[in-house]
Amino acid sequence: MKYHILTDKNINTFLQNIPKIREYFDDKVLISKEIGDGNLNFVFLVQSEKNPKKALILKQAVPYLRCAGESFALSRDRMSFEIRALRSYEKFTPSFVPKIYHSDEEMSLVVMEYLGEHIIFRKALMECRYYENFCEHISTFLAYNLFYTSSLHLESCEKRQMMDSFNKNRELCKLSEDFVFTFAYMEHETNVIDANALKDAKELFSKMEFRKNVLKLKYIFMTKSDALLHGDLHTGSIMVNEKESFVIDPEFAFFGPFGFDIGALIANLINSYISHLYENEDEKYREWILKTIEEIYEKFELKFLSLWDNQKESSLIVSNFIDEKTLLLYKKDFMQDIFSQSIGFAGCKMARRVFGIAGVEEIRGMKDLEKRADANKKALKIGIKLIENYENIKNTKELIKIIKESS
Amino acid sequence: MKYHILTDKNINTFLQNIPKIREYFDDKVLISKEIGDGNLNFVFLVQSEKNPKKALILKQAVPYLRCAGESFALSRDRMSFEIRALRSYEKFTPSFVPKIYHSDEEMSLVVMEYLGEHIIFRKALMECRYYENFCEHISTFLAYNLFYTSSLHLESCEKRQMMDSFNKNRELCKLSEDFVFTFAYMEHETNVIDANALKDAKELFSKMEFRKNVLKLKYIFMTKSDALLHGDLHTGSIMVNEKESFVIDPEFAFFGPFGFDIGALIANLINSYISHLYENEDEKYREWILKTIEEIYEKFELKFLSLWDNQKESSLIVSNFIDEKTLLLYKKDFMQDIFSQSIGFAGCKMARRVFGIAGVEEIRGMKDLEKRADANKKALKIGIKLIENYENIKNTKELIKIIKESS
Repeated sequence: MKYHILTDKNINTFLQNIPKIREYFDDKVLISKEIGDGNLNFVFLVQSEKNPKKALILKQAVPYLRCAGESFALSRDRMSFEIRALRSYEKFTPSFVPKIYHSDEEMSLVVMEYLGEHIIFRKALMECRYYENFCEHISTFLAYNLFYTSSLHLESCEKRQMMDSFNKNRELCKLSEDFVFTFAYMEHETNVIDANALKDAKELFSKMEFRKNVLKLKYIFMTKSDALLHGDLHTGSIMVNEKESFVIDPEFAFFGPFGFDIGALIANLINSYISHLYENEDEKYREWILKTIEEIYEKFELKFLSLWDNQKESSLIVSNFIDEKTLLLYKKDFMQDIFSQSIGFAGCKMARRVFGIAGVEEIRGMKDLEKRADANKKALKIGIKLIENYENIKNTKELIKIIKESS
Repeated sequence: MKYHILTDKNINTFLQNIPKIREYFDDKVLISKEIGDGNLNFVFLVQSEKNPKKALILKQAVPYLRCAGESFALSRDRMSFEIRALRSYEKFTPSFVPKIYHSDEEMSLVVMEYLGEHIIFRKALMECRYYENFCEHISTFLAYNLFYTSSLHLESCEKRQMMDSFNKNRELCKLSEDFVFTFAYMEHETNVIDANALKDAKELFSKMEFRKNVLKLKYIFMTKSDALLHGDLHTGSIMVNEKESFVIDPEFAFFGPFGFDIGALIANLINSYISHLYENEDEKYREWILKTIEEIYEKFELKFLSLWDNQKESSLIVSNFIDEKTLLLYKKDFMQDIFSQSIGFAGCKMARRVFGIAGVEEIRGMKDLEKRADANKKALKIGIKLIENYENIKNTKELIKIIKESS
């Protein structure tokens, strides 16, 4: 369908013309409410008038920066990559992605399940809520989506074909290159530095050794195409309740290094851990966060390896190419690389939050300026340690030790 | 222009309709002769009747395997990638690629300078010819094309855009994965094994340790997008005379790891070196080949670094991100990786020639079966050493030492 922007006025007609959605609602009157709080897209909550529990979300990208107005052009292609990533998740891990009722790249929109009984994982962490199934869920999400879109599973041509449909997501890759790997570590107009943190910032900006490793990691990010990534898997891109976990908003999706999504998640959990040294001061909860980090990685690794064990033939390893004993050694090295890079990326994702343009709510939102500065100092310390030592940190035990020692 | 196959009958009219070519010949009568000896494409030598020195080459791909007939379909897209790579070479190293007069992706053809006074570098090596400018030329070709299509030079979006125009070259990438990195090291129906080499083959096919490194290198080949590669840079893809060197036939072009083209060239030079232990037995010439290998790499490295020094800003390293001292350390690691990978790829390119489907003429063409078996043994020995130790061989001196010790 030719692109046009949906509003309260035309959304009903549009939705009634999609059989699957008409069938779902079975109601001629739909109530739509724009609930988007983001800077980019329009998000409508659509409900059946006679049964408001019947509800779906419609998300549409507009060709400009929503929060800045129509004069700030911004390609709405991002929605195509989001749709393609969601469709890939739907294929490999349908339980961990909202059910998709309709998607239309030309209209830059997707209609999906309304997660009315779930909350953003970041908020849940801020409220000290426990989720006993989260590690199980997210480790499956990571293992399955990373493995099934990699050369360990896909046919060679199939993988390059799939890469083709994400390779045009250039602008958002460039954003990550700039904001995750560059500007936050140097004097830059986009940085946000509290008055009482100027000294810390100056100190960071004079450190050169660790930037060598930032460059190494940035170069891996720019040139390594292991698997389809979410590209922005922080705790704000995950919605949870006691029973379910869903990954949303994969507009940064592209083919990149295995460790990037894992690192993003670990970084955000460590940030949450640090915030709880000041807010709530609930030691038990802090321990739960650390246990969560460990479990996510360990479960991810086991599941990834188990998928690999069951894969008898792939574009990388054809049958009878290598014996079991040697393959085990190969896998060991391979997994060690994924771990190291996850740690390095986690370091970047932490360090960039301190002075970079996009802080994390749980730290940048702290009212007490002294506490905030102190929390930032700790986040920075851990981030730098992870970046400086990413090639030598061997397992989650060592990671947890570093977090504890530095906070 | 809509695709149609050119023949003696219609080629004249076709060429006369292209102003640049009409102008070049300035002759109403053109003599065309099909001179293609390859399996894939048609190659016409086109000459002016009144001045036969005025000559061009027209190369057209057909949608089937030429040597097998029309029933063996084969996409003619390969010519599009060849054209795009030639155009990129023309931009960065016009002196080392035949002058292009016309290219048409829809017609799957390119019209270019006729290299009537040059010979294939492989033949030249077999005839013990010396080329004093070759190292200078090919090192510039490698350094410029690799640097200028990498993230060390291109803008982030520009690079991803350029990758887009090669990412569909899937079939030929798959060929390399299969024939350079897989089948030649295991029992496989495509292998070609002389009766008196069955024992050596069996021994190779039982070696597992080195295959772990083959897998590592294959995985780098499959997932690393450093720069635009030729993809098949053996000595048969280079034409030379005393004054000039030209790279041709980049139909395997794609974005891959820096070391792959360099490794291919080194491997083919080593094979030539080995062949001269038996044919000609000219020690001075063998020494010249070894010196050539050393010089190519050393000059490549110097030129690559010099381009990098002059690049003040890139998508990887923005101004003021890192100080000179630390940048030097970063560059040192970076270049060491390129070297190691070049060595590893050289090993694969050598070892795969021994029992794999595509041998090299100077060894597989040896009439004396005992000598041939012996030469193959040496090629295999060096190939395996390079693969097994690629991460530890530090410089060209060590490489030359291995070649000498193993032959």
